[in-house]
Amino acid sequence: MNLWFSELQTKSIMLSLSATKLLHLEKTAYQELALIENPELGRVLLLDSVIQTSTRDEFVYHEMITHVPMNTHPKPRKVLVIGGGDGGTVREIIKHPTVEEVILAEIDDRVIWAAREYLPEISVGLSDPRVKIHVGDGNVFVRENENTFDLIIVDSTDPVGPGEVLFSKDFYGAVARALKEDGLFVAQTESPFYNADLIGRVQRDLSSIFPVSRLYLATIPTYPGGLWSFSLASKKYDPLEVDETDFRSSDTKYYSPQVHLAAFALPPFVRRILSV
Amino acid sequence: MNLWFSELQTKSIMLSLSATKLLHLEKTAYQELALIENPELGRVLLLDSVIQTSTRDEFVYHEMITHVPMNTHPKPRKVLVIGGGDGGTVREIIKHPTVEEVILAEIDDRVIWAAREYLPEISVGLSDPRVKIHVGDGNVFVRENENTFDLIIVDSTDPVGPGEVLFSKDFYGAVARALKEDGLFVAQTESPFYNADLIGRVQRDLSSIFPVSRLYLATIPTYPGGLWSFSLASKKYDPLEVDETDFRSSDTKYYSPQVHLAAFALPPFVRRILSV
Repeated sequence: MNLWFSELQTKSIMLSLSATKLLHLEKTAYQELALIENPELGRVLLLDSVIQTSTRDEFVYHEMITHVPMNTHPKPRKVLVIGGGDGGTVREIIKHPTVEEVILAEIDDRVIWAAREYLPEISVGLSDPRVKIHVGDGNVFVRENENTFDLIIVDSTDPVGPGEVLFSKDFYGAVARALKEDGLFVAQTESPFYNADLIGRVQRDLSSIFPVSRLYLATIPTYPGGLWSFSLASKKYDPLEVDETDFRSSDTKYYSPQVHLAAFALPPFVRRILSV
Repeated sequence: MNLWFSELQTKSIMLSLSATKLLHLEKTAYQELALIENPELGRVLLLDSVIQTSTRDEFVYHEMITHVPMNTHPKPRKVLVIGGGDGGTVREIIKHPTVEEVILAEIDDRVIWAAREYLPEISVGLSDPRVKIHVGDGNVFVRENENTFDLIIVDSTDPVGPGEVLFSKDFYGAVARALKEDGLFVAQTESPFYNADLIGRVQRDLSSIFPVSRLYLATIPTYPGGLWSFSLASKKYDPLEVDETDFRSSDTKYYSPQVHLAAFALPPFVRRILSV
């Protein structure tokens, strides 16, 4: 059967993947969860018909959301990941030997199940003894902790459905309280081409709460427009002031100390989003 | 009518654009030429059903293929563009006041006609008095010139059909002869995700002919994988050694002196393509 999955990336732009296999499809309590196989991208995780990750290109997103803040903090020990049920971000975090504890707060345990079942190379880190899985609402969990984490990463879906609250100013305030006094925060914040308003608003909110707020970029082939943004906020450390000798080496395919710094070199059209 | 244009970016990945208007469609002597209108991307130029440029995102490609080499050369006066019939590259070149003459060698005059007719904001530079249009085979034209150009830019289609010969080692040898003794060459060289073999081969060929060869990247939303590569070869000047004070300011939306340098910070998976 000539089966194709299609994602409407904007109202008038659609990305379609040939699906040689429909590995899994279910309606969870929170969203539609599906996995397909594509000859080019490998196994692809879909939530509410939006591509989340693929075994071929997942390294870009997971390395960039993790190693930029992990290398900005001189000694990250305790890390909270909100969302990220596929485990890719956790896998990258535990590459850092300073890490003592990682808590994954994922609202939908079926995503974790599916990743363990179908994406073993992505979910592998979830079995590490330093990792604790909390199935529940990250927005609630973060409010139950104060002065606790060195780093909080929001590895969420788009700002609709379960992910929406994780882009609110009120949530960022709770994140700031849950962080230690030199803690860091990072979230994926969509496409500079198609979600400029969101990026501008998030950056304004973060800069009203944190002394340091920065935007950085990476190219993710399966995300709308390719160019993707991450928002970093920090109580103390600046990702632009990491000394090159302080970078901890990691086994990475996209991230490097040079890529870390280059990711903050924003094209003028992106800089303008931040100055509105 | 609910009309969609679809480009098969790889055998199993397809990008589709809603076409609110089919502005033009013809079979030229060389290729199928079409223009559509899309609510998100504006007017989109298609050659043999491959997206070439859109009025929304063309600035990325045209700025990056032009200003990186133009700022690497201390005083570019005479520039040859092969392909590039839409005029976007020429428009960027003539932003530099050092330029005395630009020759556009485009094989298909219908592309030039279509750009003048439907893409005035892209083709505007073609009417500049410093610009000479040569309708003909760039591979032939380059061999009729020796020690002539400060910069040669290949702004071509993919390496199939009319564009194929422009990726050959023999062509690069002719380019080297057509350049002055401190001349530079740049070409678009496809996607590091999907065309790694091509990039590796081009870089090996260029480094066997030129003392300096470099790869740099930019993110182009409408190209396969988003991440796009440009190969730069040079007889003398190194794009990594441009002094920040030497950058000539330009009215740009993607390019900046910081983006120039960041574009050469290659992710490890791209560096590996070059070391094979």
